Amino acid sequence: MQNQQILIDSLPTGKLVADNYRLAESAMPEIGPGQVLIKTIAFAITAGTRAGLQGSASYAGAPEAGRVMNGTGVGEVVASNAPEFSVGDHVTAATGWQAYSAQDAKLVTKIDPSHDPIHYLGPLGINGLTAYFGLNEVGQAKAGETVMVSAAAGSVGHMVGQMARIAGCHTVGVCGSEEKGRVLTEQLGFGSVVNYKDANYRQSLKEATPNGVDVYFDNTGGMILGSALFRMNVAGRISCCGVVSQYDTNTPEPGPRGIPGLLVNNRITMRGFLVFDFAEQYSMAREQIHTWLQSGEMISLTDEVNGLAAAPDAFVDLLSGGNVGTRIVRL
Amino acid sequence: MQNQQILIDSLPTGKLVADNYRLAESAMPEIGPGQVLIKTIAFAITAGTRAGLQGSASYAGAPEAGRVMNGTGVGEVVASNAPEFSVGDHVTAATGWQAYSAQDAKLVTKIDPSHDPIHYLGPLGINGLTAYFGLNEVGQAKAGETVMVSAAAGSVGHMVGQMARIAGCHTVGVCGSEEKGRVLTEQLGFGSVVNYKDANYRQSLKEATPNGVDVYFDNTGGMILGSALFRMNVAGRISCCGVVSQYDTNTPEPGPRGIPGLLVNNRITMRGFLVFDFAEQYSMAREQIHTWLQSGEMISLTDEVNGLAAAPDAFVDLLSGGNVGTRIVRL
Repeated sequence: MQNQQILIDSLPTGKLVADNYRLAESAMPEIGPGQVLIKTIAFAITAGTRAGLQGSASYAGAPEAGRVMNGTGVGEVVASNAPEFSVGDHVTAATGWQAYSAQDAKLVTKIDPSHDPIHYLGPLGINGLTAYFGLNEVGQAKAGETVMVSAAAGSVGHMVGQMARIAGCHTVGVCGSEEKGRVLTEQLGFGSVVNYKDANYRQSLKEATPNGVDVYFDNTGGMILGSALFRMNVAGRISCCGVVSQYDTNTPEPGPRGIPGLLVNNRITMRGFLVFDFAEQYSMAREQIHTWLQSGEMISLTDEVNGLAAAPDAFVDLLSGGNVGTRIVRL
Repeated sequence: MQNQQILIDSLPTGKLVADNYRLAESAMPEIGPGQVLIKTIAFAITAGTRAGLQGSASYAGAPEAGRVMNGTGVGEVVASNAPEFSVGDHVTAATGWQAYSAQDAKLVTKIDPSHDPIHYLGPLGINGLTAYFGLNEVGQAKAGETVMVSAAAGSVGHMVGQMARIAGCHTVGVCGSEEKGRVLTEQLGFGSVVNYKDANYRQSLKEATPNGVDVYFDNTGGMILGSALFRMNVAGRISCCGVVSQYDTNTPEPGPRGIPGLLVNNRITMRGFLVFDFAEQYSMAREQIHTWLQSGEMISLTDEVNGLAAAPDAFVDLLSGGNVGTRIVRL
């Protein structure tokens, strides 16, 4: 039996295209001591992995043609050389875009049997944990405050808005279509939404934030970050999570006007973070998020495609804003 | 007897010029209940007050032609309608650029008779307190770390570097001339200095910060902030104090490239602050700074001119980097 993989065929110059990838067959991986063989059930496609194709400036490591495309997956253990894992266990790991992978057991997380494995690509996975720590630890959101989030229909954003609502905050989502906006307000309970593609976007943002913004959860950088800076209240916090507006290019634009002047005048804190810095608190956060899912206070939106071959197009589409919720590829 | 004042004659369009001011005579101010009459001994000219001429975007309030130019001064009480002040007391207050001013007693600070009043325009005044809280509270500088400071020969910067040295940090100052650099290393104990006007500035900065930068105390914004971003260590802190590179213009440049991308990758915190946020801790900080001045560990550099009429030119010169230390106008 062969393994199937999506390989990086060439590094993108400018915008990513599906032809930067190719589907390949390879030998089934063999596991060494302390390793497990995982059959991928599904993996998530997230904008942050685009940064891994830009070279050393990213936390995702150096890019390389011929490498299996990286990504977080969930799967089933089909062979184990590690005593803590048994065949049949559901797990999450950096599977990459492939059908099977051999993983060091210490880099694999066992999924609580009472949890839905697919939730480990969403609310109980990196996306949900990122939303949780970015909002609470970095953003220090408090009841009664106004929380603004960009890429609000994205895998992280749609959870930030819901968590902020649960925390008693006023929530304002920024997204790129009326249809996404309706999902956010009607299904997820966002207080209001603003479409950054509208000609009168800045005026709409002003109207949607009559009391200013206390916490801005930034998934985009660029123009939307610039617009948020002018709405921040004194002592506001900007939680810098990602830069989706700048990933899909080789020529990032300058930073927003008003930095650092507005930071000084309004005593604003901007803090960049990576979710891995909060690893010791993951299980606490997962328990909390699980209770919200159980009670129905929080919903996991997913946007699924089927089969490895569909992944490259699904990624290109994601980078142009095509998804609502977490984009998942099921194998 | 008449009062003498420097008035804002017109708001600058583009760079400030001395003709934006005029010297005027006016009636001696009369004091009401709870007020004191202060004869100005000296006042400080600081870059931050340039922001007060740019309109509502500044913390210094709205500008207005005909207004007395604002600034912090020290003086002597010459008449008092407030029981807590006696004729002859040395005080510090927002005197503005004028020979006499009537002040509400509650906005006046009495100077400890054991302190040199002129130090209240420098290390024991707003400049020194700004350096102290920006370095320790905002920047969280710790022994062994590398602290970089811009406008390092300026009224705040020259104290930041000394306080960082006293705290056991490696200190790197950025300034605009070899002469200033020599003062910083030879008189004030900076570990190294870099001249931002040098063609190979970025390479020199890299060599001066072999272990990267943990705390960057930003007085300038603009290009120097941009260069610091690329030297910041993981979990570094940027203390945003001022934007001198952007004050003297009506068209502030865009923010540095790398915001917010580098903040995310390296988990950097940028925090803007105003010293007034720390008012409750002023007396504690003054005691600490006073001991450093007494022991000689810290030196107050001043750069003095004489007479009200000299103030406008002294301000224009300051904005183009002409000063070393705190620029003071003595009356």
